[in-house]
Amino acid sequence: MHIKNAWYVACSAEELSTDKPLGRTVCGEPMVFFLGPGGEPTALEDWCPHRGAPLSLGKVCNGVLTCGYHGLQMGCEGKAIAMPNQNVANFAANRRFACASYAGFVWVWPGDFAKASLDALPKLAWADEPEQWAYGGGYYAIACDYRLMIDNLMDLSHETYVHATSIGQREIDEARSTTRTEGEHVVTSRHMFGIEAPPFWKFALEKAGLPTDQAVDRWQLCHFTPPSHVHIEVGVALAGHGGINAPNDLKTYAVVVDFITPETDTSIHYFWGMARKFLPQSAELTDQIRAGQAKIFAEDRAMLEGQQRNQSHFTNKRVLGLSVDVGGIAARRIIERRIAGEASEAGKSLAE
Amino acid sequence: MHIKNAWYVACSAEELSTDKPLGRTVCGEPMVFFLGPGGEPTALEDWCPHRGAPLSLGKVCNGVLTCGYHGLQMGCEGKAIAMPNQNVANFAANRRFACASYAGFVWVWPGDFAKASLDALPKLAWADEPEQWAYGGGYYAIACDYRLMIDNLMDLSHETYVHATSIGQREIDEARSTTRTEGEHVVTSRHMFGIEAPPFWKFALEKAGLPTDQAVDRWQLCHFTPPSHVHIEVGVALAGHGGINAPNDLKTYAVVVDFITPETDTSIHYFWGMARKFLPQSAELTDQIRAGQAKIFAEDRAMLEGQQRNQSHFTNKRVLGLSVDVGGIAARRIIERRIAGEASEAGKSLAE
Amino acid sequence: MHIKNAWYVACSAEELSTDKPLGRTVCGEPMVFFLGPGGEPTALEDWCPHRGAPLSLGKVCNGVLTCGYHGLQMGCEGKAIAMPNQNVANFAANRRFACASYAGFVWVWPGDFAKASLDALPKLAWADEPEQWAYGGGYYAIACDYRLMIDNLMDLSHETYVHATSIGQREIDEARSTTRTEGEHVVTSRHMFGIEAPPFWKFALEKAGLPTDQAVDRWQLCHFTPPSHVHIEVGVALAGHGGINAPNDLKTYAVVVDFITPETDTSIHYFWGMARKFLPQSAELTDQIRAGQAKIFAEDRAMLEGQQRNQSHFTNKRVLGLSVDVGGIAARRIIERRIAGEASEAGKSLAE
Repeated sequence: MHIKNAWYVACSAEELSTDKPLGRTVCGEPMVFFLGPGGEPTALEDWCPHRGAPLSLGKVCNGVLTCGYHGLQMGCEGKAIAMPNQNVANFAANRRFACASYAGFVWVWPGDFAKASLDALPKLAWADEPEQWAYGGGYYAIACDYRLMIDNLMDLSHETYVHATSIGQREIDEARSTTRTEGEHVVTSRHMFGIEAPPFWKFALEKAGLPTDQAVDRWQLCHFTPPSHVHIEVGVALAGHGGINAPNDLKTYAVVVDFITPETDTSIHYFWGMARKFLPQSAELTDQIRAGQAKIFAEDRAMLEGQQRNQSHFTNKRVLGLSVDVGGIAARRIIERRIAGEASEAGKSLAE
Repeated sequence: MHIKNAWYVACSAEELSTDKPLGRTVCGEPMVFFLGPGGEPTALEDWCPHRGAPLSLGKVCNGVLTCGYHGLQMGCEGKAIAMPNQNVANFAANRRFACASYAGFVWVWPGDFAKASLDALPKLAWADEPEQWAYGGGYYAIACDYRLMIDNLMDLSHETYVHATSIGQREIDEARSTTRTEGEHVVTSRHMFGIEAPPFWKFALEKAGLPTDQAVDRWQLCHFTPPSHVHIEVGVALAGHGGINAPNDLKTYAVVVDFITPETDTSIHYFWGMARKFLPQSAELTDQIRAGQAKIFAEDRAMLEGQQRNQSHFTNKRVLGLSVDVGGIAARRIIERRIAGEASEAGKSLAE
Repeated sequence: MHIKNAWYVACSAEELSTDKPLGRTVCGEPMVFFLGPGGEPTALEDWCPHRGAPLSLGKVCNGVLTCGYHGLQMGCEGKAIAMPNQNVANFAANRRFACASYAGFVWVWPGDFAKASLDALPKLAWADEPEQWAYGGGYYAIACDYRLMIDNLMDLSHETYVHATSIGQREIDEARSTTRTEGEHVVTSRHMFGIEAPPFWKFALEKAGLPTDQAVDRWQLCHFTPPSHVHIEVGVALAGHGGINAPNDLKTYAVVVDFITPETDTSIHYFWGMARKFLPQSAELTDQIRAGQAKIFAEDRAMLEGQQRNQSHFTNKRVLGLSVDVGGIAARRIIERRIAGEASEAGKSLAE
């Protein structure tokens, strides 16, 4: 079950070119993505109305998608616009999905086209102020329910165990997290004071020109917003200067960016990355961080796929909801409420 | 659903040797193929009546198939003929399928053994006049309903898109095809006049000693016959000499041979090849053409498997039947009529 | 269907270390195996009561298993003993399976913990008298019903066909086997007199310092004991000295050891090996024999997986029970009786 009336990341902007479409399943719907005549990202059902070939095996030319089987030309609205020797006027239209470009990604709205609004896109400071921030990231296909990934990211106590050699440290366990929900926004926060920086943050401190042998204050603020985005404010400051509120020249910080797009009920497209506010001009640093994150998120992937296999097998077992799980549980509650709302709206419009 | 009382290609003659059987599923029936005492091709259920091992994992010696597990010897009629220390007289017989050798292939009749007749084999000029023709071909396993491949071959308008770099050309789209059905024979014809030969035909013209820089007339006659054979007469003649009826020294032509054998409901054994009437003695040319076709049919394979995945997913969607699809639709109608006829006959014989 | 109240081999002793758990499914139950504080092998459900992660992705430290996700510490009894910042007192306990170490293997009792008894372990002379015997073996995962492997091992007439180039020989077919059942112990015996030794036994004769060019007497005694163990006494003696009863210096013999552990209904963990009473100190000979057996059992694997695929396809067909199959049939009868007994006991305890 997924929220349908919401924006999901479908692909990175680089995945779409002016001549090739991209086939990708989002929330159980096979979609074809391509760039229309004005370069606008477009998403349709990945189905040729002629004989059912995947349109994503076709070509794009001047913003027109041509089926790679018999040459049907498909317009951005999902209506066939031409086919050799055929009158396409009465061809059934393909379902069209609202699409948008923002923050280096193509976004798709798998639900009701009419309800899609650009205002509903998340606001991302790192995307809106590119001169101050650098972003680097990657993509993993992971065989798990998207909510397992939300749980993972809203409870960073797993870092001590899953990521013991990079960002994990005992002090994460020891510092209790607090969770608050404001509307549909869940924040789970953890602050650690006067600790030794773990390897990743020593690396970041050094890059920021700060000493690596001093005690630091460290913070993690996990933000969930629907449908399934998690952004984590992370950073360290030299100890005793106010932690997250320390002056800029005494801290180094970043946002871990996680867009989780359900593919099916038990698989996701996972777009992960980091936006940092230090040394934004260093492409080399961006690459180094991306390589480090790729390793870290591969550790999560192994655990989440194991967890999914286990939950699929032990169907009668329940999981616990402990204090560390509060963030994930709050997020699931918001998701359930939204899904129920969509179902009730769909019922109403049937009744009208 | 498949026609059962008909000849399908099971394998090439080279796939059977005097010492090894071959296991292959045809129309959903796992079969073991081997050469009997007189070298006659033989097909039985691929099941050892002793403990159910696949007989195709056994050996053949002097036309007797020996199970590779415990040595049961199976005769060509499907009756066990010996087993160490056992009296096999009362062993249940295996189902036997009629088999034939023709045109370099082993043919199998998956239906009623008593109804099989060599007269029902297709008549293939290129096989019957070997001194005038050369044949070369190959095999692909493809994960699609066999009817998708029939559609593909009865509507060559796909060449412009699927095979753009070899045999496709815009003029195929522009020339309308006509389809006529005579009994169980469907022919879809397309003639193009005064066009530039596409790469494959330039190659053939050159090999035939004809100029490659002149306009040509080109033709494609797709012949469907049950259960699922498609033969395509193809060629080009120097323009203005009558096209397909031009004198032999002004044209070059061939038959694209397609035997489509259902394995399951969504997979086929695809035997493809080309019989040509020019330079039949050139084994080198045969190899060159085979290599070219292998590339072309691999393009079809990718498209057909995508189409199958799509049709399996979008189960509620219908496809269109346009003018280009008439040949495939006519073929499907003949197949349906035959299947219905077999079902009604089976009903009658149950009632007797 | 499997016997649950019995000892199965779960893994070799070497597969468990003091720092890493092992995940393995036995009789359909995903289990995590690890060494407890005293080095005792331990088996629990492979499920973390916190969020369902596989405990087998965790670590072991001083005999405590720590979940690799969020650090829950699991004790040997299946009760969580600690977790950062959590009170684990009320966490649901994991199911615990009885475990034992014996003969270089870790054994597990998938059924009722309270019924497990070390007395029920098999008695293995080669394990109890290590100075007189050498053991070498290996592991194969095989996709077949465990009973197909029992059939295989209780009817060695397959050696002539499956293992024609190593241990098979025509005389096995010719010598009839006899089967007797004593309680839950089935023995199928075959004695061959005055034959030529097959390649494997020539190799063994040579290693034992005996001539390889003389006629031998050969024997095979296949012992089945529940749940699914098969041990085969095998050997050759110089002909005319009493066969299996010949003096030790005129014969060479060994026990083929087969522990068959069901993983699912159609897959097994197969622990195979050979215990020999000649040249026990030669590690090189152990390696040579292991390499030979690995090849032989790979031949069985191919046949058994083909047989399983066939039996899964031809669901309406029956297999025969011939004289050669008597051993396997007797073993299956014992298994069925035990399974029925367990079901009836379970019914009774529900009624109490």
